[in-house]
Amino acid sequence: MKKQGLLVIISGPSGSGKGTIVGELTKKENFSLSISATTRAPRPYEENGVHYFFRTKEEFEEMIAHQELLEWAEFCGNCYGTPRAYVTEQLQKGQNVILEIEVQGALQIKKLYPEGVLIFLVPPNLEELGRRLTNRGTEDEETINRRIHRAIEEMELVQKYDYVVINDTVEQATEDILDIVHAETMKCSRNQEIQKVFKGEI
Amino acid sequence: MKKQGLLVIISGPSGSGKGTIVGELTKKENFSLSISATTRAPRPYEENGVHYFFRTKEEFEEMIAHQELLEWAEFCGNCYGTPRAYVTEQLQKGQNVILEIEVQGALQIKKLYPEGVLIFLVPPNLEELGRRLTNRGTEDEETINRRIHRAIEEMELVQKYDYVVINDTVEQATEDILDIVHAETMKCSRNQEIQKVFKGEI
Repeated sequence: MKKQGLLVIISGPSGSGKGTIVGELTKKENFSLSISATTRAPRPYEENGVHYFFRTKEEFEEMIAHQELLEWAEFCGNCYGTPRAYVTEQLQKGQNVILEIEVQGALQIKKLYPEGVLIFLVPPNLEELGRRLTNRGTEDEETINRRIHRAIEEMELVQKYDYVVINDTVEQATEDILDIVHAETMKCSRNQEIQKVFKGEI
Repeated sequence: MKKQGLLVIISGPSGSGKGTIVGELTKKENFSLSISATTRAPRPYEENGVHYFFRTKEEFEEMIAHQELLEWAEFCGNCYGTPRAYVTEQLQKGQNVILEIEVQGALQIKKLYPEGVLIFLVPPNLEELGRRLTNRGTEDEETINRRIHRAIEEMELVQKYDYVVINDTVEQATEDILDIVHAETMKCSRNQEIQKVFKGEI
């Protein structure tokens, strides 16, 4: 029996550094990276099919209608969603999959895949969050303030997650998440076959 | 609020290498080590109050009567138990505590402390288990056979544990357990205070 891959969901407030951390994780370990679909406009450095599948509102609604999304959410006026087929395919092949998604979407996935590992990434404090959103230089002040307010609200949801990782430095947060992934692979619930080794059945 | 220490319970069949691994863990990280009480005869190298508190059957029964044991179990004709006071004291001080106990006792503790981290340590296979018990040279053949039989039975209980660690090499198994401990400290259920940081309450 092929062991199912691990679905690792990196979520957390806007500005918590999800994108950077996911980039580091995929450099260090062989994760399949799910690419989200979104209706938001590309940032200057972003490429279609690499960072996101950029879709019009109409195209996105069609994906919802055809149940091609594992989850989707509207966030600050834009829609984000996770194409379903690729994720389930990779997990069945025994491949670990990493998802970077907004808080609402992450909680939807956890309902569909309770065995998914839900990680809440947070900046060390509010001041640092403000600094990161400002330094990004891609949003106006109103958007930044809305995102900070949203981050405070989203912190209420941390209890629905499995783990909380403080993104103080990228190196430490990456190591923290790799330890979580490693520990999760040793969960008894994911190692039902171990008894059989001792009974000589496999 | 002082954060409660983590109770890490290393258990598994006789011959799985619990003692060696616990020794390595305490060298690498600052764990408080609980010393068990037992009625079994000391092995040549074992010291009273260091490896175990060696007690007569009568003394052990008195400890049970006075509820001084967190758990106790009879195993191959001998009694083993965990003195209660030291463990609770260390956890309250925020100190991580490591316990090395037999399978029955470990499951008793998990009932009392559901937040304890229960780790099932197993040798890579039955042949290796037999080899280790024989090489120890402290038990006769009948005892060894009884322990192997018991190990197969105990494997049935692995599903009641949180994690399973295969003790193939001491170094790898020690690293595995340190990763589990690290991951557990990041569980959301153990980090309820993090929301308050964001609300400016602490």
